[in-house]
Amino acid sequence: MKIDGTAYRSIWAGADGRSAGIIDQTRLPHEFVTLELSSLDEAAVAIRDMWVRGAPLIGATAAYGMAIALREDASDSALKAGYDTLIATRPTAINLKWALDAVMARVAPLSPTERAEAAWHFAAEVCDEDVAVNHAIGSHGLELIRALAARKPAGEPVNILTHCNAGWLATVDWGTATSPIYQAHDAGLKVHVYVDETRPRNQGASLTAWELGRHGVPHTLIVDNAGGHLMQHGQVDMVITGTDRTTALGDVCNKIGTYLKALAAQDNGVPFYVALPSSTIDWTVRDGVREIPIEERDGAEVTWVHGRRPDGVVDKVLIAPPTSPAANPAFDVTPARLVTGLITERGVCSASQAGLASLFPERAVA
Amino acid sequence: MKIDGTAYRSIWAGADGRSAGIIDQTRLPHEFVTLELSSLDEAAVAIRDMWVRGAPLIGATAAYGMAIALREDASDSALKAGYDTLIATRPTAINLKWALDAVMARVAPLSPTERAEAAWHFAAEVCDEDVAVNHAIGSHGLELIRALAARKPAGEPVNILTHCNAGWLATVDWGTATSPIYQAHDAGLKVHVYVDETRPRNQGASLTAWELGRHGVPHTLIVDNAGGHLMQHGQVDMVITGTDRTTALGDVCNKIGTYLKALAAQDNGVPFYVALPSSTIDWTVRDGVREIPIEERDGAEVTWVHGRRPDGVVDKVLIAPPTSPAANPAFDVTPARLVTGLITERGVCSASQAGLASLFPERAVA
Repeated sequence: MKIDGTAYRSIWAGADGRSAGIIDQTRLPHEFVTLELSSLDEAAVAIRDMWVRGAPLIGATAAYGMAIALREDASDSALKAGYDTLIATRPTAINLKWALDAVMARVAPLSPTERAEAAWHFAAEVCDEDVAVNHAIGSHGLELIRALAARKPAGEPVNILTHCNAGWLATVDWGTATSPIYQAHDAGLKVHVYVDETRPRNQGASLTAWELGRHGVPHTLIVDNAGGHLMQHGQVDMVITGTDRTTALGDVCNKIGTYLKALAAQDNGVPFYVALPSSTIDWTVRDGVREIPIEERDGAEVTWVHGRRPDGVVDKVLIAPPTSPAANPAFDVTPARLVTGLITERGVCSASQAGLASLFPERAVA
Repeated sequence: MKIDGTAYRSIWAGADGRSAGIIDQTRLPHEFVTLELSSLDEAAVAIRDMWVRGAPLIGATAAYGMAIALREDASDSALKAGYDTLIATRPTAINLKWALDAVMARVAPLSPTERAEAAWHFAAEVCDEDVAVNHAIGSHGLELIRALAARKPAGEPVNILTHCNAGWLATVDWGTATSPIYQAHDAGLKVHVYVDETRPRNQGASLTAWELGRHGVPHTLIVDNAGGHLMQHGQVDMVITGTDRTTALGDVCNKIGTYLKALAAQDNGVPFYVALPSSTIDWTVRDGVREIPIEERDGAEVTWVHGRRPDGVVDKVLIAPPTSPAANPAFDVTPARLVTGLITERGVCSASQAGLASLFPERAVA
């Protein structure tokens, strides 16, 4: 999407054919800084230290990391070393392993002289494929927004609430939850986004608000507590979130707090949609609440808040007594019964076994 | 309640009979500082700058402010000047006006030589009455906790979730939502409290966690997003919140985000109680969602977070792009249908016209 008028992806091939460019997302929203990754180690640090984050972008960065490594040394041992270095950066990131395995499958059978070029092309393919999938999600979601817009009084925007950052910064471009929004905005539909700040890590405040603002999409930041009140008063026309994992029956595991917004949406008759590439569907899991283990993260993420001081220094502040323990479950599960529909690259379906089977008959489970 | 073993109220009469002591709540949780209010102006600043906050405590501070002023000058003009100075500090605080009107009614008919002493006694009465009401609320709520404790396996605590600060710091002592919790803890029942941090002003993180910790009540701080997940997994046995205003039909207007917790409680069969002194019931309002105007506060409360830096300096940090607007509705309304019961000083009743009529027949509306 655009940053103040200039088109960007979240990762791009360097003109030298041996590096990749990224945005240092740890500095957002306070500074916009791009970095050049020109060695395996730099790519590894970029993933490990979360200069890049979001499952699709992590996968794409890993693919470029391998390509960059193979430009230096394309031997079998270098190939293995590159894989081992990158896989260790974020052990639980499923897209990381997927991308690295895919690179290996593509280049390992080749002679060392062919590997670097093949890896380079493959990394570009990974990126283009992600963009195509997200664009397709957006095209389908756009029709939902268009239908809502048709029912609004002239001049009034469609108000969309989103949680966390399922934006273009988390993918290579378009994002998942944001793709319908960007496409609606670019098509001239009047949209306005309520952005949940998304405690404890504030990805809504620091990333979603930033990327929407830079592209020019009207938006308003709110605390996570506010969405229910807004829905009670007709100020939200639809909710669109992303998902980290969707079960075969349509349960949605996403950033902590998503479930509360789904409850409020149901209580107020607001449609609640989840946008996802089908690669995030876990066909082996049925009951998300019972079966999906939820990562418990460091309580310091709750008690320390990061931001920019009035004097311009980026710092953190403690908001609680140092003696108070904090619990920090990172995700929750929204049961399928609360989800109006799943927006996938193949179209929109109900959040159910039958709905998913209608779009993905080849994967449907009994 | 106790602060590290020493009993405190949130306001107390000075030994000199012409001042009052308070806790500077703006410094919590980072510093525990008590202050002596020995002039009308100091009392006015204490209310205006929120050294004291919470409706009952504001009322008590206003009463002491009048008593302090009248020690200096008890003339008719001084009486009026004291009233005017204090009423201007927090124009929307309903308890402020109630307390000042009550002081006026009590002392205006007296001769100037009698006024100071009468005001002094009245301020003490206001405080004692608040403590008695809150203690009664706690006694009734204690029985609810006792019943839950009886059903828990031996050694397991009753897990109670609360939102915002309806604690002793907001009242003269005991608090409202916390009163049953303190009484259960003091009675030797095993309780554990999940404290919602309560964005945007973080009263849960800065005040509720602090007062529970200082009294010795086991507790865990969580982000406002986490409660639904905890309820899905059986980690919450009951919710108790306070309320700013309760309607004649049992709707509850409380800190923004309360409604989302009530929805999650209902979805998971968790009892959701609201603790309140009957003085906060607005018998003239029926449908809280439609009739109660919600205060929209400064968006800077959302975008700037206050706390203590690692170097010990209390500061604030910006968490969002400076160009992103923020909306900041301060309260929401939880419909009576989501409230299991109201805990009042006269007992527990259903959140309904009939329930309220059963406890307050003299006020029941047709």
